[in-house]
Amino acid sequence: MTVPEIDALLFDVFGTVVDWRSGVIRDGRALSEEKDLDVDWAAFADAWREAYQPSMDRVREGDIAWRNLDSLHRDSLETLLDRFDIEGLTEAERTHLNRVWHRLDPWPDAIPGLARLRCDYVIAPLSNGHVRLLTDMAKRARLPWDLILSAELAGHYKPDEEAYSTAVDLLDLDPEQVMMVAAHERDLDASGELGLGTAYVHRPAEWGPERSHETEKPGESAYDVVAEDVLDLAARLDA
Amino acid sequence: MTVPEIDALLFDVFGTVVDWRSGVIRDGRALSEEKDLDVDWAAFADAWREAYQPSMDRVREGDIAWRNLDSLHRDSLETLLDRFDIEGLTEAERTHLNRVWHRLDPWPDAIPGLARLRCDYVIAPLSNGHVRLLTDMAKRARLPWDLILSAELAGHYKPDEEAYSTAVDLLDLDPEQVMMVAAHERDLDASGELGLGTAYVHRPAEWGPERSHETEKPGESAYDVVAEDVLDLAARLDA
Repeated sequence: MTVPEIDALLFDVFGTVVDWRSGVIRDGRALSEEKDLDVDWAAFADAWREAYQPSMDRVREGDIAWRNLDSLHRDSLETLLDRFDIEGLTEAERTHLNRVWHRLDPWPDAIPGLARLRCDYVIAPLSNGHVRLLTDMAKRARLPWDLILSAELAGHYKPDEEAYSTAVDLLDLDPEQVMMVAAHERDLDASGELGLGTAYVHRPAEWGPERSHETEKPGESAYDVVAEDVLDLAARLDA
Repeated sequence: MTVPEIDALLFDVFGTVVDWRSGVIRDGRALSEEKDLDVDWAAFADAWREAYQPSMDRVREGDIAWRNLDSLHRDSLETLLDRFDIEGLTEAERTHLNRVWHRLDPWPDAIPGLARLRCDYVIAPLSNGHVRLLTDMAKRARLPWDLILSAELAGHYKPDEEAYSTAVDLLDLDPEQVMMVAAHERDLDASGELGLGTAYVHRPAEWGPERSHETEKPGESAYDVVAEDVLDLAARLDA
């Protein structure tokens, strides 16, 4: 497939580009070792991520004013530390753990795929993560973005329309010239309604290998592109 | 000198990182050749740049609503085409010439200096150029920014306070943790008043080699750092 009119690709990040679950488990286990804690960090990671949508919805629905992900993650972290009976963490240790979302590793195909796509397109994240989080993540993991875009620049979390339209405006493009890339149908459906191109990337292991069967890949016609991963996306866009 | 508390460096771009004058002359001469025009492109470049502050001041003073630099540059371009008796340009040629500000080359020290600074600091432009302009420029010239920041994100041109404070907020830092780097005292003076660190970079040839003597380097104590160029800045910051 060729999509000659597309000028820029916007990427969802958590789950699509980076493997949040392994990153949280990795840093959680390091903390367990250091502090002699007995915690099921896989369950902790999943519970933290499950708190993500409801916490953003409080902002999206106007219950609370705009707050960045560090702040929303910190609220849910405090609840989870209680629930998982994790005691004795200093403020510095809590802050460090909370910022694990800045230290996530990309899926193995992400960097080679992005490097190819960058030759033909402007590439940027469009994440609910804030600008600083995405900057730290890119710097640490060497994600080759052309620029950092974020829902923070709109003051609206995805899938609010403003998150996408602000990014399109900053790229000085029409929606049809921009393609949203995500592993989540909700993100793509919102993008498609605004006229953006849509590319689905399949990440069956986002919630761990044992839950891979739960993520069904949509049919080829559901989006402009349905790809196995970011390298496959590059191949399908002839990049 | 060591500035251990600085986390991020913000760079003025036109004149500080890139040589706007040579870029406009280069593309102007190419157009002259193509269209058989007789134009003093050095004088044209200077006149275009001289229209820059007054055009932004119209936005800053509220005479007109926010417009990006492509739009402001285009207004002054039309006036200058008249003044320099340049006729017969198509709309596509005008648009291309207007976007020469997206295609400027860095001073020779800029990329090696930025590459060194990037190891120790978050580095970003903070220019009156809009996000798309800065993105195109970075992509073409391979400027190794960690992220693109711009006055556009504040809807206020420098030296309005909002341009700086928005960038500091997006970096999730205090002003004291951010250093503004510029070849222009006005930019640094406004930054310093808000509590940002200040680094002057000397660009005597900004307005052409024959006017080099007009740009006096400020004394060492005028700013936190007074550097010969971006490589010298890296050396002075121990990067």
